[in-house]
Amino acid sequence: MFVNLKETAEKLKSAENILVTSHINPDGDAIGSTLALMQILRSMKKNVQVYIDDNVPKSFLNLPCVDEIKRPAENEKFSADLFVVLDTSADRIGKVSEMTDAPILNIDHHVTNKGVDCDLHLEVEAAATCEIIFNIAHELGAEITENAAICLYTGMATDTGFFNYSNTKPSTFRAAAELVERGVQPNLIIEQIDKRTFQEVKVMSAALRTTKLYFGGKAAGMFVDEELYKKTNTTEGFIDLIRVIDTVDVAFLLTSHEKNICRVSMRSKNANVAEIAKRLGGGGHIRAAGCTLQKTLEEAKQILIQAIGEYLVETNNISREEFENCEEISISNF
Amino acid sequence: MFVNLKETAEKLKSAENILVTSHINPDGDAIGSTLALMQILRSMKKNVQVYIDDNVPKSFLNLPCVDEIKRPAENEKFSADLFVVLDTSADRIGKVSEMTDAPILNIDHHVTNKGVDCDLHLEVEAAATCEIIFNIAHELGAEITENAAICLYTGMATDTGFFNYSNTKPSTFRAAAELVERGVQPNLIIEQIDKRTFQEVKVMSAALRTTKLYFGGKAAGMFVDEELYKKTNTTEGFIDLIRVIDTVDVAFLLTSHEKNICRVSMRSKNANVAEIAKRLGGGGHIRAAGCTLQKTLEEAKQILIQAIGEYLVETNNISREEFENCEEISISNF
Repeated sequence: MFVNLKETAEKLKSAENILVTSHINPDGDAIGSTLALMQILRSMKKNVQVYIDDNVPKSFLNLPCVDEIKRPAENEKFSADLFVVLDTSADRIGKVSEMTDAPILNIDHHVTNKGVDCDLHLEVEAAATCEIIFNIAHELGAEITENAAICLYTGMATDTGFFNYSNTKPSTFRAAAELVERGVQPNLIIEQIDKRTFQEVKVMSAALRTTKLYFGGKAAGMFVDEELYKKTNTTEGFIDLIRVIDTVDVAFLLTSHEKNICRVSMRSKNANVAEIAKRLGGGGHIRAAGCTLQKTLEEAKQILIQAIGEYLVETNNISREEFENCEEISISNF
Repeated sequence: MFVNLKETAEKLKSAENILVTSHINPDGDAIGSTLALMQILRSMKKNVQVYIDDNVPKSFLNLPCVDEIKRPAENEKFSADLFVVLDTSADRIGKVSEMTDAPILNIDHHVTNKGVDCDLHLEVEAAATCEIIFNIAHELGAEITENAAICLYTGMATDTGFFNYSNTKPSTFRAAAELVERGVQPNLIIEQIDKRTFQEVKVMSAALRTTKLYFGGKAAGMFVDEELYKKTNTTEGFIDLIRVIDTVDVAFLLTSHEKNICRVSMRSKNANVAEIAKRLGGGGHIRAAGCTLQKTLEEAKQILIQAIGEYLVETNNISREEFENCEEISISNF
């Protein structure tokens, strides 16, 4: 059942023992929104605990109160009268789903959330769940402390690519303004999140050297093999280095995580990469999508370039001849 | 003489023929603020012309009305009753200074501007001159069209590192919110500005491969020799690739522009790089500074590393022994 902002605030107000969670593979919005809501509700003297069935990514380990996030033990229970699920429907929260039978209050901004078996407060125009938590704090008349503001800002910033994606709305900027008034220092937030080890920069440099252009520059790709991937287990932000090439519509990153398991990430300026990903068994958004191919890196590369090329032909971005005569242009040749 | 916002608006209102300019080597704020003010004043039926004594950088060539920016010809004059100088004092505007004898109205946010021989409206808390022009438009009661909004947003975004530098204030975010309401699409703005040619990405990749760590990782540098620099004549954004390394306080980029002319750019998280730059004959801000060394790349490298090391010793970031036994660690060795 859908509930509005006021009803959501009422449900939070009338609960005393509240379990808060978010999705596995948590991002800045999942971590930020759970921590912020916890702090806001605790300031109202509620008994609140955050459980997430995954590790906190290292970019977010400096967030205020992050040590309060627990990971559920086998068969662990939490005696709650309200179960708040943030930034996801309740089917992506791992073992936390078994911790309580309390009624679920689901708060999310993903249009795909159908709100099954729960009260759902959905704001699809919100750039991040953190923006909704910001609105809820106002509705509750709760104070947003500097620590809570840092958590909210982090979620909004990471979900909008630091205010640069198309989901950045006037309301996002206005919320950011208020959070800065409450003590957030934007430069320190991005410094924490963008931090890389030297080893990661080494891997990024090696990955950049693999860049190839296809279809007269309309597509560009990077290739991270298993050996390279294992050095740091992250390729965060790599695709942004080639996405910016002026001729490129579709940028992709092909990473071999394990033998015969390749992960594909795609970004585009115009092309519908969700459609390309779907044909390869994946999915996503129009401008950011991905899939997994159970192939070697070399096989996956052929399949992916074929799929991108077919799409570009169908959408009249290249001719059939350009597709068939596609040359691979390497970054290493000046 | 200092003039406030109201007086500034009055001066603009009472003028009819207005020459608008900004500094040579123009950035997003120089281009954005001149174009926005021109559009705002033209909507008030003023006769306005922008002259800048330099080329418009390619990142800004898609801004609305950019073709209206003229470069002064030899001895060209403009018959003005007001001469508006934006984002700089009037000594950095090249030949435009000779185009008119009209009284100068100087509008700027740089704390170093002393307002010599002019009326100066200075808002040092404004993140960008574009933020001041936004305030002036409100004071004038002028409409900010979508085109003017795009120009204002571009200046604010580029002067704040897209809302990530420490100069990003609540007022900056609130202005951005309103500009998005007037039609700005944040994703399209950054896409235009971040655009690179494939050749630029090649040079960036080659530059990244030159990365070295010093002083146990507290400093990191990239080296662009003359041959590499000549391929694109830009190193925009390169330093950001190594600034993010977790151990690094001082990041630098050393570029040989011509034989025996090396340009140094430095960024820091804590160190006062303006002090280091000053000792080498340059200057800048605490966290972003630079200098020029009339040396070969290899000589400049030794001088620069020596200066950074001395500073780190003085500020107790490294010991004298660590300074003397400094090892150079290359990115290319895993």
